[in-house]
Amino acid sequence: MIVVMRQNATEDEIHGVIRVAENADLKVHVSRGEERTVVGLIGDVRRLDADTIAFLPGVERVVRILQPFKLASREFMPSRSPVPLGGVLFGGDGDEVPVIAGPCAVESEESMMRIARLVAGAGAAVLRGGAFKPRTSPYSFQGLGEPGLHILAKARELTGLPVVTEVVSPQDVELVGAYADALQIGSRNMHNYALLHEVGRQPKPVILKRGMMSSVEEWLMAAEYILSAGNTNVILCERGIRTFETSTRNTLDLSAVAVVKKLSHLPVIVDPSHATGRADMVVPMALAAVACGADGLMVEVHDDPASALSDGPQSLRPEAFADMMRRLEPVAKAVGRRIAAPPGRKVAGGHEWGDQRDDEHSGQSPQKRAHGPASASECAG
Amino acid sequence: MIVVMRQNATEDEIHGVIRVAENADLKVHVSRGEERTVVGLIGDVRRLDADTIAFLPGVERVVRILQPFKLASREFMPSRSPVPLGGVLFGGDGDEVPVIAGPCAVESEESMMRIARLVAGAGAAVLRGGAFKPRTSPYSFQGLGEPGLHILAKARELTGLPVVTEVVSPQDVELVGAYADALQIGSRNMHNYALLHEVGRQPKPVILKRGMMSSVEEWLMAAEYILSAGNTNVILCERGIRTFETSTRNTLDLSAVAVVKKLSHLPVIVDPSHATGRADMVVPMALAAVACGADGLMVEVHDDPASALSDGPQSLRPEAFADMMRRLEPVAKAVGRRIAAPPGRKVAGGHEWGDQRDDEHSGQSPQKRAHGPASASECAG
Amino acid sequence: MIVVMRQNATEDEIHGVIRVAENADLKVHVSRGEERTVVGLIGDVRRLDADTIAFLPGVERVVRILQPFKLASREFMPSRSPVPLGGVLFGGDGDEVPVIAGPCAVESEESMMRIARLVAGAGAAVLRGGAFKPRTSPYSFQGLGEPGLHILAKARELTGLPVVTEVVSPQDVELVGAYADALQIGSRNMHNYALLHEVGRQPKPVILKRGMMSSVEEWLMAAEYILSAGNTNVILCERGIRTFETSTRNTLDLSAVAVVKKLSHLPVIVDPSHATGRADMVVPMALAAVACGADGLMVEVHDDPASALSDGPQSLRPEAFADMMRRLEPVAKAVGRRIAAPPGRKVAGGHEWGDQRDDEHSGQSPQKRAHGPASASECAG
Amino acid sequence: MIVVMRQNATEDEIHGVIRVAENADLKVHVSRGEERTVVGLIGDVRRLDADTIAFLPGVERVVRILQPFKLASREFMPSRSPVPLGGVLFGGDGDEVPVIAGPCAVESEESMMRIARLVAGAGAAVLRGGAFKPRTSPYSFQGLGEPGLHILAKARELTGLPVVTEVVSPQDVELVGAYADALQIGSRNMHNYALLHEVGRQPKPVILKRGMMSSVEEWLMAAEYILSAGNTNVILCERGIRTFETSTRNTLDLSAVAVVKKLSHLPVIVDPSHATGRADMVVPMALAAVACGADGLMVEVHDDPASALSDGPQSLRPEAFADMMRRLEPVAKAVGRRIAAPPGRKVAGGHEWGDQRDDEHSGQSPQKRAHGPASASECAG
Repeated sequence: MIVVMRQNATEDEIHGVIRVAENADLKVHVSRGEERTVVGLIGDVRRLDADTIAFLPGVERVVRILQPFKLASREFMPSRSPVPLGGVLFGGDGDEVPVIAGPCAVESEESMMRIARLVAGAGAAVLRGGAFKPRTSPYSFQGLGEPGLHILAKARELTGLPVVTEVVSPQDVELVGAYADALQIGSRNMHNYALLHEVGRQPKPVILKRGMMSSVEEWLMAAEYILSAGNTNVILCERGIRTFETSTRNTLDLSAVAVVKKLSHLPVIVDPSHATGRADMVVPMALAAVACGADGLMVEVHDDPASALSDGPQSLRPEAFADMMRRLEPVAKAVGRRIAAPPGRKVAGGHEWGDQRDDEHSGQSPQKRAHGPASASECAG
Repeated sequence: MIVVMRQNATEDEIHGVIRVAENADLKVHVSRGEERTVVGLIGDVRRLDADTIAFLPGVERVVRILQPFKLASREFMPSRSPVPLGGVLFGGDGDEVPVIAGPCAVESEESMMRIARLVAGAGAAVLRGGAFKPRTSPYSFQGLGEPGLHILAKARELTGLPVVTEVVSPQDVELVGAYADALQIGSRNMHNYALLHEVGRQPKPVILKRGMMSSVEEWLMAAEYILSAGNTNVILCERGIRTFETSTRNTLDLSAVAVVKKLSHLPVIVDPSHATGRADMVVPMALAAVACGADGLMVEVHDDPASALSDGPQSLRPEAFADMMRRLEPVAKAVGRRIAAPPGRKVAGGHEWGDQRDDEHSGQSPQKRAHGPASASECAG
Repeated sequence: MIVVMRQNATEDEIHGVIRVAENADLKVHVSRGEERTVVGLIGDVRRLDADTIAFLPGVERVVRILQPFKLASREFMPSRSPVPLGGVLFGGDGDEVPVIAGPCAVESEESMMRIARLVAGAGAAVLRGGAFKPRTSPYSFQGLGEPGLHILAKARELTGLPVVTEVVSPQDVELVGAYADALQIGSRNMHNYALLHEVGRQPKPVILKRGMMSSVEEWLMAAEYILSAGNTNVILCERGIRTFETSTRNTLDLSAVAVVKKLSHLPVIVDPSHATGRADMVVPMALAAVACGADGLMVEVHDDPASALSDGPQSLRPEAFADMMRRLEPVAKAVGRRIAAPPGRKVAGGHEWGDQRDDEHSGQSPQKRAHGPASASECAG
Repeated sequence: MIVVMRQNATEDEIHGVIRVAENADLKVHVSRGEERTVVGLIGDVRRLDADTIAFLPGVERVVRILQPFKLASREFMPSRSPVPLGGVLFGGDGDEVPVIAGPCAVESEESMMRIARLVAGAGAAVLRGGAFKPRTSPYSFQGLGEPGLHILAKARELTGLPVVTEVVSPQDVELVGAYADALQIGSRNMHNYALLHEVGRQPKPVILKRGMMSSVEEWLMAAEYILSAGNTNVILCERGIRTFETSTRNTLDLSAVAVVKKLSHLPVIVDPSHATGRADMVVPMALAAVACGADGLMVEVHDDPASALSDGPQSLRPEAFADMMRRLEPVAKAVGRRIAAPPGRKVAGGHEWGDQRDDEHSGQSPQKRAHGPASASECAG
């Protein structure tokens, strides 16, 4: 930590800083320039609040040298850390790029089953669907709740694909964890520390979406909350940040993918659907995400977006999704990777998921595995 | 709701929109321009999701005419709605401007009592102090929790001032409500709908801080969550938004005060401490806030900011706070208002709070008033 | 300048930095922490590009200690520097707050004269009006050009008030300077260095609007361009920055007024009209600006805003302007200042400007004062 | 244009709007809803200022239906418009993706020649280099000026590649146009309308960088300035926008590439160097840009970035540039395109530019073609 003193700082003020630093067991290095004196603090300054120092008399500015996150950092773990999600691997050696797909919200069993079958047939590796929906209006559809979780579990049985769904309240973490293969923290809850702490205390992997107005550093600090609570399976998901531009719902920050990969060992995936809010932007941004190194994609698909209960305009129709999957493959290959096959299958895409595979999953019910992280993928693969 | 069709929209596409609208019991008005056809939907469109229409084939854009919030709107309640907070009135006829003051976090009983006495003596009308602190780092001080609430209650007994403190998790709402006279929702939780819903179901007034990433409309929608759950006592608090500028922590958006007053009947106060993050900016921004019509202020005060466990650099020292109170009065008067006196006193400022008043509060315990909004202010005034 | 080396920087890399620094005649201070080595560079580093150092092998980050601006800084001139504008003083000992008013664009002689007389009668100290208008659309009214300057000069003769108008191209600087008492650099040209350089080489004071995308530091650097070219009469004007919020055209950053006053000796005024883009927000923001220490205001007034050729919705009608002037006075007084009287008058506001004063200005032509900063105000006062 | 009246708008106010519209020869459509009356204006409303209507009594809001740009729109020209730049084609049928490369600033003949030869050898199709540099500090290197243009012309002779360079002042347009094959308008000058008008009146193609705080719509309006002045050869260049995120210099908005392609027929390229400001982010963002459909790239290359006079940290070293070129090819192919070969060559990349080719260009001098757009590319291809 570097403490820059004001131009007219007195010796007393300089010593005030030194005293605070030495009380915190830090070594001190004083450097007197022509216009400014600078005090360097050496040692583990993570516990020392930069703001506290900043307020000391005579201090102009404090500059942190170390990153504020530790467990999430590359320095803590130089190699990349793969995160298994129901038989599908995110990150790791990094050549597989799984695609998570499904409707924004679970609306009905019939609709979910139909969409699940379609996206599985097109090569999705993980299913998504919201049972608890954070909505800006109290008058909008808020999700089916637990019945939605039941439906998701059925979709998993049908397709053999693991499922991920959002959790919005600490009280629901256990319930959601009993059904889902991974828990999603949405953009609006990235700063909900009570929730982060709770998902950090359970074993299912967590997909942590970037807050729409969070810096990369704050995002990694949110991951640090989960990691420091004991859960090491965190997948970061870039989903656009809020800017002045209004032609897309948010501004997809693909540079953040590259930045995160420099700073952290955690896998980072991209959600082009929420980022752009426009179905016609999803495919180009998905291609770009894979080209720049994303470890996965999360894409909304709906077979009747005009009647979708939420986020219709950003959902791909199934045929557009299938087309996207076909176009992703050569781009992934061009950067030395490949689109991940669904768990239990050797290659992505190709043909509709066969009936006999469904049989392999028969007999599995969420109740049976309520207390373990077991998932369809374990059976499938 | 106005539906703008694409230039080349077919008659079928136009009729698709009309059909959806008529199914929703809306009247339809079609206007064919030279370059575009526009379909107006007339009726209660609040339940109809603009996004659903936006996705229909041939639709270019959907323009909402009505505000998405209702209970929070001026149209619902043309006059301003005063919110009583422990004997102190926010909003209402609007001539009184209460000042909420105290440390960012409750650190110890001794420190809280000392600061409480000082700010009360300087004319603060409400005490603040955090027992549950949302912090960006899991390694930072997270607040004392329930013991902090005990200390706040003692500070209320000492000073006769009502207390406000933040709640960060739905599970804590009942506990915090048992101690505090008002519950604060912090900026990072403005989109935490589970929490908003919970504070909407209890009777204590809620101070709803603007999300640092939230538009005025979203802020009023968050208020709508609380109002629609049954709690009509919502005070909005502008505390700065995130922008590209880095010379202050956030950018205080004082225009939002004027905008909110146009759109809503709810009182709106300003927190210049968190907005700027710099003690030397607090006083000018407090003066500006009162000049442009803020219904109150929330200011951080610490008597030893350099050793504060959080947010030191933005805290005023007590003497600076007293000076601010003196400078606020003439500005308030210049715009036809006055700084609110503490509950039970006729005028703000002046002299230290007398010992005999403390006696009046003896025997009060949070348990006694656990189920009602009763507060120290009822005794004091 | 502080150079933070990467965790694994080699001795060779550290010496590479030292070599570059020593070649630039800087003293070097090496501080080896547990996780990082930090190299401090001492001396006049303003000429050394931080980016150059940042690229050296092994360097993680470079932290500038000194402000990049010099002539604009408080350290260069500890006291505030008053800027005279045609007999009206901005800044200085700081108790007078002049109000600049007029239409966005000069539309016709008749309209300009009528508005000029009205705002002068209401107490404006300086007239404004655009002859060259930067417009986002090539199809919008671009201003009358030189004939507009003629009209402005006539408005000065009529009212005795100095006039300020925008210049948008280096080629026009001499022409505009021949007519106007001050030159305005608009927000969109704050980064137009060729233009900044040119207005820095002529003697008329310059009102430098903040770029809607510019940090305070960049704004002061733009001022530095003008100051370093030889013109010391720079008045800064905050006019809102671009953010995600859309309820106002831009977000007025009043904290910037306080920040600038800390960093610089230059006067800083506020334009609430362009900042908010809404007539109903102008008065509250004008009151707030004066309360937080602005050294002046710039306000758009039009007597028929609905037929104004540009920026109608943000213009005050004359009666609203007169009302604002009456409301500003007590706020100014509350913070120890007063609204500046027009040049030649003892007090602001009051009565319509008399005919006989107009006579005093007869015979003045822009040509006569082409080469000096002389202005109507010299005659008037 | 849709005019939304206030809830309590009177008949008189509604007729006020109708009158203004009819005076402008527009047809009017009045739609009376339960809560609001809406007035639709039909006809060519481009000349009618939305703001003027917005100010009429009783008007709440005005919604534009048509895009404000015309010549730049897809509706004006449904197919894509190729822009030839010295024998290299941008846009058009869209399968070729040219890469523009070179140093940020021309620093010396020796350095420019060395870098030009290296990037040409690696497959760049166009050379870049700044002779006039807009710098935030008046004390930074501002470019060599005309001697820099001479050097660029020599680099063109050496390599056979066309050259592009920035122009910052209307006065310099003729001079720069006499040397360069294309003129660049930098981000800070995107709103410099005097400059846009001037480059619109000369024949060389213009590369128009997006303002770092400009919406896509404003960017296309800036293009409209150039197009409406007569120059139809405009290439748009996305180079990052300013946001709250600080881990990269700006936030590269790749969605804007897809948005522009929907709205406009103009080619759009991407500059990952200025967008990110970090050499280690350039390659991933270049790959992403090509994957999402960019019609070209502009990349900074320097063979000794640590001694570069400007923008060192974002420059690729030549070997990194060559590596990027090799990695771009398969990504381009994966999306059905290919990296454009330099003019006169059949394929990109491969071997160093041969001596005999240089001979083909012998005898060409900028003087010879001072008054025409002739360029090396004409000879080369």
